[in-house]
Amino acid sequence: MPDFIEQLEQTIRERRAAGASDSYVASLAAKGRAKLAQKLGEEAVETVIAAVAGDDDATISEAADLVFHLLMLLADMDLSFDDVLDELRRREGVSGIAEKSSRTRA
Amino acid sequence: MPDFIEQLEQTIRERRAAGASDSYVASLAAKGRAKLAQKLGEEAVETVIAAVAGDDDATISEAADLVFHLLMLLADMDLSFDDVLDELRRREGVSGIAEKSSRTRA
Amino acid sequence: MPDFIEQLEQTIRERRAAGASDSYVASLAAKGRAKLAQKLGEEAVETVIAAVAGDDDATISEAADLVFHLLMLLADMDLSFDDVLDELRRREGVSGIAEKSSRTRA
Amino acid sequence: MPDFIEQLEQTIRERRAAGASDSYVASLAAKGRAKLAQKLGEEAVETVIAAVAGDDDATISEAADLVFHLLMLLADMDLSFDDVLDELRRREGVSGIAEKSSRTRA
Repeated sequence: MPDFIEQLEQTIRERRAAGASDSYVASLAAKGRAKLAQKLGEEAVETVIAAVAGDDDATISEAADLVFHLLMLLADMDLSFDDVLDELRRREGVSGIAEKSSRTRA
Repeated sequence: MPDFIEQLEQTIRERRAAGASDSYVASLAAKGRAKLAQKLGEEAVETVIAAVAGDDDATISEAADLVFHLLMLLADMDLSFDDVLDELRRREGVSGIAEKSSRTRA
Repeated sequence: MPDFIEQLEQTIRERRAAGASDSYVASLAAKGRAKLAQKLGEEAVETVIAAVAGDDDATISEAADLVFHLLMLLADMDLSFDDVLDELRRREGVSGIAEKSSRTRA
Repeated sequence: MPDFIEQLEQTIRERRAAGASDSYVASLAAKGRAKLAQKLGEEAVETVIAAVAGDDDATISEAADLVFHLLMLLADMDLSFDDVLDELRRREGVSGIAEKSSRTRA
């Protein structure tokens, strides 16, 4: 499990709980689930545009926004990035392809 | 850095290189950057709908699709999830909030 | 009110009501509101990509898909494109700018 | 062809040409194609959320935003809503279904 992402999730939970008016996380969370989901959608659109334009820096920046807002949306549902990774692990296990690839490299 | 995500990225690179016709990764990659970006956008829309519907399982499933297609898009640009995490680390360092939170917990 | 759009909406209502298994409209409508909304989102993403690529033909084609799926979504909610135009008319009336522009041309 | 939409398109062209700093249309157009496309994507996401929430008023409002930004994006490409309707007419002509429906009603 990515330590830095766990740390980010902890920070998001703390900012949500503190509810400071000057906190972006707290302000957005206060607007509710639909607004958080909307932001995720918007950041995805921006990532799409940056990638199609072939702009590496913009793609990284927009992807960072996308991941951060995904963490915020998951936090709002009491879910975590690790739940998402577990689902990806489960799929790779089922397909067997990643597992095999993993064995080959070991 | 998340080991499992690194492993997934390695698997994606291998499937792209192998180009097997029965590989989802290879088939989608062969359609080019715009198609990969389109899929990212579509998975984001599905994540939005699952989250607004309050469906935890569907949200995790769609978020897994979203992350997987983000990795595929990044791979197409010779970028990695670690580049995205570096950008998030940089931002948290600038804001100082996560860093402070990290020190508090240390 | 655009006659052709009214005609399209009538066709959509008829196909929904008939529910023929070989009708795209009937099949998609049977999948429910969320699926119709998802398709709208997907067509928007495709329109975005076509426009950013500067591809006129693709933009027209994707925008046609977008408008058609908007009509299907509105129909599912017993709304019509005319409701949307009424909202746009109301806004232009409020801003007064279009009205003035209209008077100038009259 | 919808007279009101033609009028809206004329207004958009005039505001773009005038380039007044207090005009939303002129300001957004000045930011370029990618920004216009991004806004279209964002309005689509908002329409999706409003529709899934079953909120008629919000759906009409967001669909109005969506259509308006589609007109702005088309204008940026020297395309018009009529080009989109022509594509829809062509498709219905090919499928023959709308045409038949039209004859029945005539």
